[in-house]
Parts: sequence; structure tokens; C-alpha cells
Amino acid sequence: MKRVYTFGNGQAEGRADMKNLLGGKGANLAEMNLIGVPVPPGFTITTEVCTTYTKEGKEAVVAMIKEEVENAIAYVESLMGTKFGDPKNPLLVSVRSGARVSMPGMMDTVLNLGITEEVAEGIAEKSGNPRFAWDSYRRFVQMYGDVVLGMKPKSKTDIDPFEEVMDKVKEAKGVKLDTELDVEDLKELVKLFKSAVKERTGKDFPDNPWEQLWGAICAVFDSWMNERAIYYRRMNQIPEEWGTAVNVQAMVFGNMGETSATGVAFTRDAATGEDIFNGEYLINAQGEDVVAGIRTPQQITLEGSRRWAKLQGISEEERAAKYPSLEEAMPVCAKDLIETQQKLEDYFTDMQDLEFTIQDGKLWLLQTRNGKRTGAAMVKIAMDMLRDGQIDEKTVLKRMEPQKLDELLHPIFDKVALKEAQVMAKGLPASPGAASGQIVFFADDAEAWAEKRKKVILVRIETSPEDLRGMNVAQGILTARGGMTSHAAVVARGMGKCCVSGAGEIIIDYKARTIEMSGKVYKEGDWISLNGSTGEVYDGQVRTVEADLSGDFGAIMDIAEKFTQMDVRTNADTPRDAEVARKFGAKGIGLCRTEHMFFEGDRIKAMREMILSKDEEGRREALKKLLPMQRQDFYGIFKAMDGFGVTIRLLDPPLHEFVPHQLATQKELAEEMGLTIEEVKNAVDALAEFNPMLGHRGCRLGCTYPEITEMQARAIIEAAMDAQAEGTVVTPEIMVPLVGSLNELKMQAEVITATAEQVFAERGAKVDYKIGTMIEVPRAALTADEIAKVADFFSFGTNDLTQMTFGFSRDDAGKFLKVYQEKGILKNDPFQILDQEGVGQLVKMGTEKGRSTKSHLKVGICGEHGGEPSSVKFCASLGMNYVSCSPFRVPIARVAAAQAAVEK
Amino acid sequence: MKRVYTFGNGQAEGRADMKNLLGGKGANLAEMNLIGVPVPPGFTITTEVCTTYTKEGKEAVVAMIKEEVENAIAYVESLMGTKFGDPKNPLLVSVRSGARVSMPGMMDTVLNLGITEEVAEGIAEKSGNPRFAWDSYRRFVQMYGDVVLGMKPKSKTDIDPFEEVMDKVKEAKGVKLDTELDVEDLKELVKLFKSAVKERTGKDFPDNPWEQLWGAICAVFDSWMNERAIYYRRMNQIPEEWGTAVNVQAMVFGNMGETSATGVAFTRDAATGEDIFNGEYLINAQGEDVVAGIRTPQQITLEGSRRWAKLQGISEEERAAKYPSLEEAMPVCAKDLIETQQKLEDYFTDMQDLEFTIQDGKLWLLQTRNGKRTGAAMVKIAMDMLRDGQIDEKTVLKRMEPQKLDELLHPIFDKVALKEAQVMAKGLPASPGAASGQIVFFADDAEAWAEKRKKVILVRIETSPEDLRGMNVAQGILTARGGMTSHAAVVARGMGKCCVSGAGEIIIDYKARTIEMSGKVYKEGDWISLNGSTGEVYDGQVRTVEADLSGDFGAIMDIAEKFTQMDVRTNADTPRDAEVARKFGAKGIGLCRTEHMFFEGDRIKAMREMILSKDEEGRREALKKLLPMQRQDFYGIFKAMDGFGVTIRLLDPPLHEFVPHQLATQKELAEEMGLTIEEVKNAVDALAEFNPMLGHRGCRLGCTYPEITEMQARAIIEAAMDAQAEGTVVTPEIMVPLVGSLNELKMQAEVITATAEQVFAERGAKVDYKIGTMIEVPRAALTADEIAKVADFFSFGTNDLTQMTFGFSRDDAGKFLKVYQEKGILKNDPFQILDQEGVGQLVKMGTEKGRSTKSHLKVGICGEHGGEPSSVKFCASLGMNYVSCSPFRVPIARVAAAQAAVEK
Repeated sequence: MKRVYTFGNGQAEGRADMKNLLGGKGANLAEMNLIGVPVPPGFTITTEVCTTYTKEGKEAVVAMIKEEVENAIAYVESLMGTKFGDPKNPLLVSVRSGARVSMPGMMDTVLNLGITEEVAEGIAEKSGNPRFAWDSYRRFVQMYGDVVLGMKPKSKTDIDPFEEVMDKVKEAKGVKLDTELDVEDLKELVKLFKSAVKERTGKDFPDNPWEQLWGAICAVFDSWMNERAIYYRRMNQIPEEWGTAVNVQAMVFGNMGETSATGVAFTRDAATGEDIFNGEYLINAQGEDVVAGIRTPQQITLEGSRRWAKLQGISEEERAAKYPSLEEAMPVCAKDLIETQQKLEDYFTDMQDLEFTIQDGKLWLLQTRNGKRTGAAMVKIAMDMLRDGQIDEKTVLKRMEPQKLDELLHPIFDKVALKEAQVMAKGLPASPGAASGQIVFFADDAEAWAEKRKKVILVRIETSPEDLRGMNVAQGILTARGGMTSHAAVVARGMGKCCVSGAGEIIIDYKARTIEMSGKVYKEGDWISLNGSTGEVYDGQVRTVEADLSGDFGAIMDIAEKFTQMDVRTNADTPRDAEVARKFGAKGIGLCRTEHMFFEGDRIKAMREMILSKDEEGRREALKKLLPMQRQDFYGIFKAMDGFGVTIRLLDPPLHEFVPHQLATQKELAEEMGLTIEEVKNAVDALAEFNPMLGHRGCRLGCTYPEITEMQARAIIEAAMDAQAEGTVVTPEIMVPLVGSLNELKMQAEVITATAEQVFAERGAKVDYKIGTMIEVPRAALTADEIAKVADFFSFGTNDLTQMTFGFSRDDAGKFLKVYQEKGILKNDPFQILDQEGVGQLVKMGTEKGRSTKSHLKVGICGEHGGEPSSVKFCASLGMNYVSCSPFRVPIARVAAAQAAVEK
Repeated sequence: MKRVYTFGNGQAEGRADMKNLLGGKGANLAEMNLIGVPVPPGFTITTEVCTTYTKEGKEAVVAMIKEEVENAIAYVESLMGTKFGDPKNPLLVSVRSGARVSMPGMMDTVLNLGITEEVAEGIAEKSGNPRFAWDSYRRFVQMYGDVVLGMKPKSKTDIDPFEEVMDKVKEAKGVKLDTELDVEDLKELVKLFKSAVKERTGKDFPDNPWEQLWGAICAVFDSWMNERAIYYRRMNQIPEEWGTAVNVQAMVFGNMGETSATGVAFTRDAATGEDIFNGEYLINAQGEDVVAGIRTPQQITLEGSRRWAKLQGISEEERAAKYPSLEEAMPVCAKDLIETQQKLEDYFTDMQDLEFTIQDGKLWLLQTRNGKRTGAAMVKIAMDMLRDGQIDEKTVLKRMEPQKLDELLHPIFDKVALKEAQVMAKGLPASPGAASGQIVFFADDAEAWAEKRKKVILVRIETSPEDLRGMNVAQGILTARGGMTSHAAVVARGMGKCCVSGAGEIIIDYKARTIEMSGKVYKEGDWISLNGSTGEVYDGQVRTVEADLSGDFGAIMDIAEKFTQMDVRTNADTPRDAEVARKFGAKGIGLCRTEHMFFEGDRIKAMREMILSKDEEGRREALKKLLPMQRQDFYGIFKAMDGFGVTIRLLDPPLHEFVPHQLATQKELAEEMGLTIEEVKNAVDALAEFNPMLGHRGCRLGCTYPEITEMQARAIIEAAMDAQAEGTVVTPEIMVPLVGSLNELKMQAEVITATAEQVFAERGAKVDYKIGTMIEVPRAALTADEIAKVADFFSFGTNDLTQMTFGFSRDDAGKFLKVYQEKGILKNDPFQILDQEGVGQLVKMGTEKGRSTKSHLKVGICGEHGGEPSSVKFCASLGMNYVSCSPFRVPIARVAAAQAAVEK
């Protein structure tokens, strides 16, 4: 079995389609070589080695791959004409992780590996640039110390031992910038850094290049299991088994002087999707400098540079002098780069995210990968490429990340309100969207506040992977430092979250928890608004309006419609929701909950009268009052869904939810009903349950009080007939909730049928209707063959089914579900992503058993999962007729359903 | 297909082993003919006809069997030398239902069918006894009216139209007894009865014998589906498909004068099982007169008669004169009867329940069947017959109704005392036994009073774990709310303590410390008595006697042991319970709940400290205090179970159950812990859950606070080693509750293993232990193949599994479960009898999937169902290794398990 794959000089043992084995980075490095893009030679250790490493540990793996790695280094040496560890003509390498998909939570890169005191001296001599040599060594010790030897402080309040040393040296010297340090200072720094390592770790800093290399390789493998990586995997549903590859590559240096540079670029605009090549670079710098935010990165293209200057309020003169574009500063390299980026995009037929280094006037590509993008860019790029004939419709569909469509559906700022809004600061439009929220400064606070359902804007000088969770729960992110490719910007775009980055004028005081913008001081908790599409920061809360669904969005929906084999319905309780969903392409209502209808105005009174009645007669009296109201509700919904099926669920929640729990309201009710306050109190108490979720609710209400079912069935049938009489095409589907056994549904179906027949007799007309049931109790799935005998359709209520199958109360599980995810006991929150392994078995069983009795049984799902892409695909794989979800998830579900069909 | 089977004159088309087709009565009538017992000739219409009747209705069935019935009547006519409907020489018949098993809820008998005015005149002439003729006719009209024409009042408060007429006639005549009416009066009565029928039903009373016959036959079939029969079937788990047969038999008359009689008899004593022939008879009477209670029945044997007289305080002179035995009154017939009963018992090799009639000095047997008996009689009769060589051991086992063994294990009320006892209320027979005591309302009081050696009955609206100690010291428990599986019921059964639960009519006033029952107010300290086997609550003290576990009981257990292929363990939390169960034959503990141990004395304080701690360190401090106490508990249990496995379940209930909810206790706790009352209140509130059943409990506690698992694992391992060091053979089995996914068990197993290894290292010794899990969450059963990877054993927690599979909260389901059973939606309470159709699928799946991963996986059950015979048999059919149940159910489970093995 081959474990190490070399590449270089137009040759490679790997290919782009070997991502599972070589990781995304490694596979593309190989492919770039094969298509003639200049890439420093190197090799990739496979992801399979990582898996072995996790199982068998360090020593076993080093022994296993030692010979192959040594051969690969020799190969690189031969291509570079240098030698690893040779002071006179040293080969330095970079070591990078590279999983199948990009993972920002993973190990950082180690650069300049192979350097030692002797080698540094050699480089100084060979390059004639001792400062470069010793700065490289200093950087290496610091980087290796942080990344491999665990010197990096775990939290921000901890002291960073390297920074501490650095500060002392600068202080002693009386300078402020690193660049002001001379060779001797750097030599001193290296010594002090090494002492710090010895002090902290008890071990000498490795002065053997091979020891360094094995340390770095193992650190990459270790990083696969670090907390951040685990968290990122969990957030992005990446299996632990995938592992990461390790890429070892000959170093090229962007910091060898004014003819060297380094940068990152996108082949198209990652925010809008426009076909504009763009990126940032720094002269005389190494990779991490561009994203670190210490120096202001410059734009690659002249056009981009001018636009940037305008946004920043910088004059053309100042721009050209201080921040020239690459096209101006290194026109030949820029031309190379522009050609190369086009070549790569054409080759991979997708927007690319590139890393490059220019060493002494020669361009090297260090990485290419499909670029992260916003939902809007995802849609536009795919549609542009389709129109250009670069990809076909199926590929368009496959390129969609359905969740990201969400960004396109959500509100943007109201233009009028926006005119009055006061701009307090301006940064970069790092990730589009509109967001209003209360200021918080720390990721922890963002999480805590968000748990209390507060909307927050996370304000940071800059973000780091530790802030990931806080960013995830915030409405938007504002940073003072960092460009369009800073951590904040990249991550926010990935999350589809509004972000303004690099708003340099704002003054953040973490200690005081304040931010000063345009002279005004905002405290933690104050409201601000962000426009991620312009980079503007507004005072207070700014009104938002509905999103405009652009033509490309509609085109994507049309393509989805063309390929899908499963309908998408919506969960809607009102004609308004039904209309919204219909606009999004919903084909009917999969779940219309009737209980919400009982809370309005006089209805709640009649409902309470019904509940507190002592006998059937009293209940019937109260139900008579509710009948016309319910009929009117259903009528409106039938009209809105003309031509489509409407599934109406009968009363579901425990009656306790409807009775008043406040003394004042109880008194009022007592007076109205001519009862004593004690009678009302007792009745309310009698309805209380230990576990209402498993109590007297669902069809258990209809089975104990059939008159409720009767009233609802009558309201539905009458409303349907009223609408039908006006020419509306109606298909009422009456859904009995919480059925666990055949007899429950049988009894309810008898009541419904009898009622319908009576209405037909009264009116001398008919309407087609169906009777079906929720499958949401495990027993219903287990006995679905029985239940199907009297059901026209099944609708899986995966919310309750998940609650009962796991034994998790959704209202209480927060306490331990979070810990479960942190500890990796559960990969996902099963209430968000359908648990295919457990709950999914019941869904499968229910579908198959149901159809074994009735082969044409209509089957759908109406839980929260109906709008979650992986769950939608699972439903499609079972051959369901439809999924039903909330209106704003309909487009997501439609695309996921189409993807399922295309992938099949 | 033959649908009618005749018998008579020593011939029969049926046999005793055709009970499924002919019903119990019909098959035995046939068999009695075949063995030469005098039986009036007749015929049986099969149960299959009943099934057809239910499906296809009256007309189809009458047409189908018309010819066969007419032929059968002709056959009876030929044997009797009479003719159906012939006024001169009429054949009268009886019509009786007869299912496979005796069903008291079924149709009553119709006697004297075939009589009309003409026929009555004919009988009067032929017999020379017009009073007999017209009395027979009057009886027939009344009986047929009641049974076939639906004249019988539905409730006791309704007017009985026949009684009304009878009363008027008697009043007019100025007499009190029926026997005082003369022929003319009887004729008048018949006329009036018929008018009443016409008035009520709108139809003439049928004067055609054939019409009468078909009416009666169809009424028997109809009665199969009447409410009482359905209810009885539900209570006794009799399938609807069985149907009932109809027996038509030539009438013989016990009311033809002083040489005629009728009676019922048992071949042995149905209460004690003693081999004493006994029974009652009346001279000049028809069947129903004996049981109707209008006349005092007389004893058949002289010995029995004398005993009876003594009990009644009647002198020998009076007895001999007024109530002579049959042996005295009709010595020849008595001799015949005694010989016949012995013949029948010998033939059927079981105690028989007989009906006989003597017509004009000739004995006729009308029915024989296996007699119903008490648990004590069941055991004694079977063992006596075994010793006599009449049956073998397997038959002994098959004859056991395991549930009835329960009667033998608990104290019972003295029979004489019970007769005088006044029933004040009725609840559910939640836990059998008899108890008398003084009323207390609070668990604390129960403890305080018990310390003063007072016998108390704890009366609560409902109980909670806080009441545990009070329950433990009480004689019995009475609750107003809660079903057969409420906290009170389950705990009481576990303790083998008498409990009446859910006595809804009683009104408890905690403040006034009073309870109102049937209008009488009882104060704290007043005496009441509970019958846990019937649910009755009596006024005052009723004398009880201790159960005597006779030698026969032990012998039955030995036979069970010989045949069983499945072990029976016990659910026990204390050494005392463990010892009791061991005496009953438990082979180990299947469920030792650790939570009960935390309520005693200082423990609850330490427990609360643990719960209210703000961090792990605080929890560890508190857990340190609990460790030695837990270790001591487990030590005691290991000692008691020397040589057997002990399965200990880790902490299971939500922490909310342990914290104080009373302000006073909260204050006390706040002071002790140095907290403010608000802090304690907030902490308590924070623990409250919407659905605690589905909340933060079970292994979710251990996963979020692994230090709890660590402490418990340490306590178990240390205790086991302490006991082992003393020569006790210990096998601790550590059981992780509420596991729903592999990772949960994995994580807990890691904590347990690490702890065990640490203890082993500390002590330089080892002990064998096992780690397993409850399968009680549906997802655990669904993913049992995964979970089995890290489990040494599975124990099905069918209580929770039932809750989650049905979505029924045991604490709340009372509200609708009762209605469900009444309406026939559910056949049984699934918390009492395992729902094999639904929950059983998960148990089967869990067992099979678990063993597919680990073929020798030990599998058991520890829910309430582990002591319910049909559920035990189901477990045996799945090849489980053991069932575990409360100590007092161990003998029941042992017999059920042995039966399963024998039946296999």
C-alpha cells in the first residue's frame, strides 16, 4: 500500500480526484503540477495513515512510513538541488494539514522547517541576507513552538511566552516594531525562545531537521483530534474516520526582499459571485502575514485596488504610493497570476481560492481549492457557469449547499430606514446580509446571551478559531482588523453570516467592554446594525425588509423542479404562511396545526369553557361556538392552497396548555362560567401532568372526547365544501395525531367518516377527503402494517418520534444535549438533523410496513427535519411522497430533494 | 362441515377434547354421555357458527344451520319420545351458551323453551300438575323476555317491568311470596308479562316454539358481543375470535314436586382444596333458584350439612327438620350423585363443578366443568392428585394459574371478620395483602408513629420518593390518585406491602388531616383496613392472619425448578428484600436501584449538597461522604446474595426528586450549606423539568457528571471486594440506565473500568465484575447491535420502554388508559401486561440484535412485567436468561417460566 505521494516539476503520483486519500490540498497540489502550474515540489502523506495513527499511535506510524518519507525528501532534494539539513545548501519545507474538506479549526502551518542554527548561518551566507535567515529561524522556532510543542496559550488571558520574550527584547532595545530588530536581536530572540520552550516543556527545542519533521507530521495527525477540529467536524458533519493528510513541500520565500511577495486570491467575488478576479498580497512577507492583520494587505488588481481605496477614503495618490496593486508593483508576476487563476478556474470549473508566493520575481502557487462563498455567490457563480456552458444543470444542483439558500430568503435593510440610519463606522463588506443586535465582546458572552434568546453582534479586534462558537450564534460579526480574507471574513461567509471586517477606525476596549465609533461610546448590550454588503455599521436597530428573490434564485428553483422526484409541502397554520410558502414553491400543506387557532380572542374563552365542562353536553355547547371560527380558518387555508392538498392535524396539545394559570384570569373565567374560583383552580390542577408530552393529548383527546373530533371534522368538511362551491379545488386530508395503535385511528376515523357523511347528507353534496395519521409514537412505526389498514396517508412527525425514540424531552434536553455534543457522545442535535441510525430505522420500518399493507400509501414527513437537507435526502431515499417544512425552508428542501434525485 | 353435534343416551358426536369447537359445556356434555353419566339428550351448535354469525349476521346463519338443527331436534324427540311444540306430548328444551372457557359475563340460560299456552295446557293435563305447567310458562316468559327480548333492566335503578307486574299482582292478591300464587294468578301473570313485552318491544311475545328457539340461539350469539362479555374477555384475555357454542338440551324438571330437586356441587373444597365432596340443592326448584338466594339452599352431604348448621348456629334438630341433606332427603339419588361426581373427577382428573337436576327421583347431570378455586385450593388439589398418581408433574405445572400464588404469600383478612366489615371506598388492587392501621397523612408521621409501635396506614393523594421511608414502615398505603403502576403501587408491590391506589372518591384534606369516605369523616389516628387484593377500604380494624407457606407450595416450587429453563431474579434494594426473595427462590438480583439508598438519614443531606454544588470539586466533596454509605449498602446486598449475581443500576432519577420542595426544608438546607434561601430556591427551580421522564436522568447524569458514576462504581467494587475477602462469592454487575446510544455506554464503561482498575491497584486484588445496560429507550433496542459491543449484559427495562414506545407517561396515563380499556382501544394495561405486539417487537429486536453482535450476551428483563405470567412466557420464548421481579412475584414468575418450558 502506497502511503506517500510525491509531486513536483510537472509530475505527480496523485490526482485531483484522489481527495479522499490525499486531502483536498494534496490532491490539488498534485493536479496543479500535472496541468503545468508552478508548484514547489513536495509530497503528501495519505489520510489512511492518519486513521492508523489514531488507532495505533505515533511510534507504529513513524516506523511504518519512515522509508517512504525519506525517499520522498530525497526526491524533493533532487528537484530543488538542495539537501535537507545541509547547512551549505539547505532544503527547508513547509508542513501543512489537509483534510478532504477545508477545516479552519485544524492545525496551522509550520513554515521553514529544517532550519537550525547551522542552517540559518548557511542561509545567511548563501542568500547574503542574514536578517532574512535569522528572521526565518525566529519565525520557525515560534511557529513550531506554538503549533507542535503546545506553547500557544490556551486562552486569551494566559500569557503567550513568545510574546512575553518579544516584548522584553523590544523594550530593552527601545523599539516598537519587529522590523526594527536587527540580526543580533533576532539571534537573541531565538535563544530566548528556545529557553522558553525548555522551561515550559522540559525539553530542548529540536535541533535536528528530521526530528523537527516527524514532530510536525505527528502534530498534524494529533491536530485531527484536537478540540477545535472535533467541534468543527461536529458543526459540519464531517466523519472522524476521514482523517487528514499531511503535505510537506519545499519552502519558497515571499520574504526574501522587495522582489518577493505572498498573497491570497479568489477567481470570482466570493461575496456577490461576480466574475471579478480579486485578492490581496504583501511584499516581503510570509503567508501568515496577509491574514494576521498586522500590515494592511494590498489589492492584486488595479481595479480592485482603486475600489478598495475609495471605500477606505484613500486618495489615488496615497493609494498608488503606499498601497499599489500587484499589477502596478510586479506587472509580470501579476500577469502570470491572472493567467494562472483563469487556467485553474477553467480546469476545475469552479471558483478557486488560491494561495501564492513570489520568490525573487518568480510566481509559485501554494494551494488552490474551491472557494467558500455566500449563498448569493453560490447561486450566481453556478448559474453564470451554466450559461457559459462550463457546467450542466445537474452540476449546478450538486454545487448547491441548500442551507445557504437561507441567506437569500432573509430580510435586508429597508432602504428608507437605511437612509435615516446613521453610519458610525465603515469596514469591509466581508460577508453580505443585514444584522441588528446587541454588542458583546467575547464569544462566551455571545453564547450566553444567545441562549437567553438575545440577538447579539460579536465585536472583536480580530477573530480566531476560538471564537467560532460565538460567531455561530451571533447575528453578525464586526472586526476592527483584518481584510476580506481574514479569519472573520472567511468563516462568516462560510456560515452565511453578516460580517463587517477591518473597520479600522473603531476603538475597542475589551476591559471596559466599550467600543467607540465616530466619537460615540457604545457599551456592551447597546444596539448596532451591520450591513455586510457595504461594510457599514449603523447606530441602533435598523428596520429590515423582505429579501428580493433574484432571477438566478428562481432559475435554481426551476432546475430543482425539473429533477426532483419528491414534493415539498409546507407547515402552515394561516392563509398568510400558506401564501408565502406557495411563493417559495410549496405544493400543498403537510401540516396545519389547529391548536394555534384556539388562542385568539373569544376562541380561548370557548375553548376553556369546553375544557372545564363537566360533561359531554357542556363540551358540545362550547364546541358549537368554536365550530364557525374553525370553519372560517380552514376556508381561508383551502382558498390559499387552491389545487393542492391540505393536511389538517386534529387537536394535539394537552388541554392544560389552554387553561389560565394566573389567578386573575382564573377569577375572570370563574365569573364567566358561573363557577367558584376553587372549582376553576381544581379543574386546572386536575389537568396538570407530570409528563405532559406523554400525557392526555393527541388522539387521546379525540378518543376520550369524540365530540372534539366531530366538531373539527365538521369544520374541515364544511369549509372544504364552501371553498369547493366557489370553484376552489380542495383536497382536505384529516390527520389524526399521536396514534399508537390501530384501534385509536379506527375509532377516530369512524367519527370523522360519520361526521362527513352527515354533512354530505345535510348539504346534498360531497367533497373528496382523506383520513391519515401522524407516525410519531414509536409504537405506530412498529405496528404501521396494522395502522395502514385504515390510513390513507402517513406523515412522520419526527419531532415527537425523536423525543420518544431517544427519550429526550425537547424542552429539557438542552441541559445535557450540549454536553453530549461537546463530549462527542452525539454527533448532531437529533432535533435538527434526523438521527438516521436510530429514529431513521423507525421511519424506514413505518414506511415499509405501511406500504406492505397498502402499496400506494402516501407517505411524508412534517417534523422540523423536513427542511434539513441531509434529512430530506434520507426521506427521498425511502421513496417518500413529500417532505413538509416551514415556509422559509421550502427552497432548501426543494434543492435537497432535487439533489437526492440527481445523486441517485 | 358439520355444525351441529348431537348427544344423548350414552352416545355423542362430540368429545371432551373438542372444547374449541363445542365449548367447554358442550364438549363435556358429549363426554359425560360417552362415559355413562345420565345427561338429558340435546345438541351443540359449534363456536364456528358464532364466528360466522358475527361476520354474516342472523339470516345467513339461520339459513345455514336450519336443516341440521331441525334434524337434531328430531333426534332429541326420538330419544325423549316427545315432540317439540306438540301440546299433548311436548318436548321442552333449555338453551345455554358455552364458550371454550367459562364466561360469567355471558348470556344466562333460557329454560322451558318450547312452551306456549297450548303446550302449557297440555303439560298441565299430562302431569296432572297445572300449577307446575303454568309456573313453568310464567318463568319462561320472564326469562325469555329478560334474556332474549332485552327486557332486563340495564341498571339497578331502572324499573324491572316483570317485577313491577309481579308486585302489582301480589299486592292485588294480598300475598308476599310467589309460591302463594295459584294457577289463575299465574295465568294472569303470563298475560300481563306478555303485554309488558308488547309495550316495551312493540312486538308480540313469540308463541311459536321454533321462533322461540331461533330467537334464543341468536340471542346466545349476540351475547358474545355484549358489553359484559367484551369486558370479561378483556379482563381475562380471551380472544374475540373464539366465539361461543350454543347448547340445546331436553328439559328435565327439578320443580315437578317433592321427588324432584336441583343443585350444584364441587367434587372438592374450592376454597381449601380439601378432598371433600360438597354442594347445595333445593327440592322442587329450577336451576336458578339455588343461586338466586330466595330460598335457603340445603347441603348435599350429611357431614356438610352438619358443619353448615354449626356455622349458622342452627341446632341439629332444626337442621334435620328444616334443612336435611340430600343424603337424608333422597338417599338413593344422593348415592347416585356421589358415585357420579367421583366418576367425573376421576375421568377428568380435576376438581369438577357440577350442575344436576333430580326429576321425579331420577338424577340427571346438566353440566360438569373444572371448578374455579382459590390459590390455596389450586396448589393443594394439584399436589394431592400428583401424590395419588392421577396427574404428573407437568400437569401440576400446567394447572397453576401463577397469579393466584400471590394469594398465598400475603397476610389475609380473617374470613369471619371480613363478613362484618363495612366497605367505605374502593380503589385499585395495587398491591395485594390485608392491612389494618391508624390513618396518618405524612411520611414523617408514619415514621414517628411506627417508632412508637403504632400500626399506621399512610394515606396520600399520591406518593413520591420522599414518602419512601413512611411507606416502608406503614402497614399499607392508600392513595386517591394513580393507577396500578403509580409510584405508590410499584413501590408497594416491590415492598410486598398492601396498597390500594387511585381511590378517586375519597376526599383528602392534608390541612385538616381528614379523609372523607362514603360521607364519613376520618381523622388522623382513626382505624381503617385495606384489602390490597380487592381494592376495598374498610371501616375500623379488621382482623388479619399471616400467610402460611404450606409444604405444597414448596413442592410446587420444586417442580417448577425442575422444569424451568430460565432463571428468576428479584428486584431488591435492601438486604432484607434480597433475603425475602431468596427464600422465594430468586437466583440473584436483576435490579438493585441505588436511588432509594439516598433518602435515608444524613444521606439525603449529602446528596443535596452534591446536587447544589456549583462545580465538580464541590460535587466530589459531597460524593466522598456518600461513598462509605453506598459501599455499606452494597456490602449487605452482596452478603445476602452470596453465590448469585447482583445487578446494580447506577443513579437513575432526575436530581429534582432529591431536592427539598418545602420552604422549611429549603431554609434548613440553605443554612447548612451556607447559601441564601434564594440560591437554594433557584437551584431547585433550575432542576425542574417539563417532562422529567424524558429529562436529565439515567446515564445522562453519569455522562454530564462522571464523578457520580465514579463514586458508585467505587462503592460497588470496594463492597464486592470486602465481601469477597470474607469468602462470599460475589458477581457485581454494574448496570448503566437509560442508554440510547453506544457512545453513552462506552463513556460510562470507561469511567467504571478506570475506577475498578484503580481500586484493584490500591488493594492489590481483583474481583470479577460485569458492565451492562438497561434497554429501556426505544433507540437502545433499535441500535442494540451497536450497544452490545460494549455490554456484557442487557436488561430490558420494560416500564420505561413501554412509556416511550407508547408515548404514555405512567403517572398520567390513568386519565385515558381506563377509557381506552373500556372502549376496547387497548386490550390490557400495557404497564401490567407486556404489549407483545408493539413493545415486544423492540424487546425481540433488542435481544436478537444484541446477540447478533455477541452470541452469548446475557439478556434479562427487570420491569414490572418480569412478574406477570404472560410476559414471563414471552421472555422465555425469546430465550432470555432471566426475568427479574419484586420479591413477592418471584414464585409467580418461577411457575410461569416453568410453564413456558413445559409448553414449549
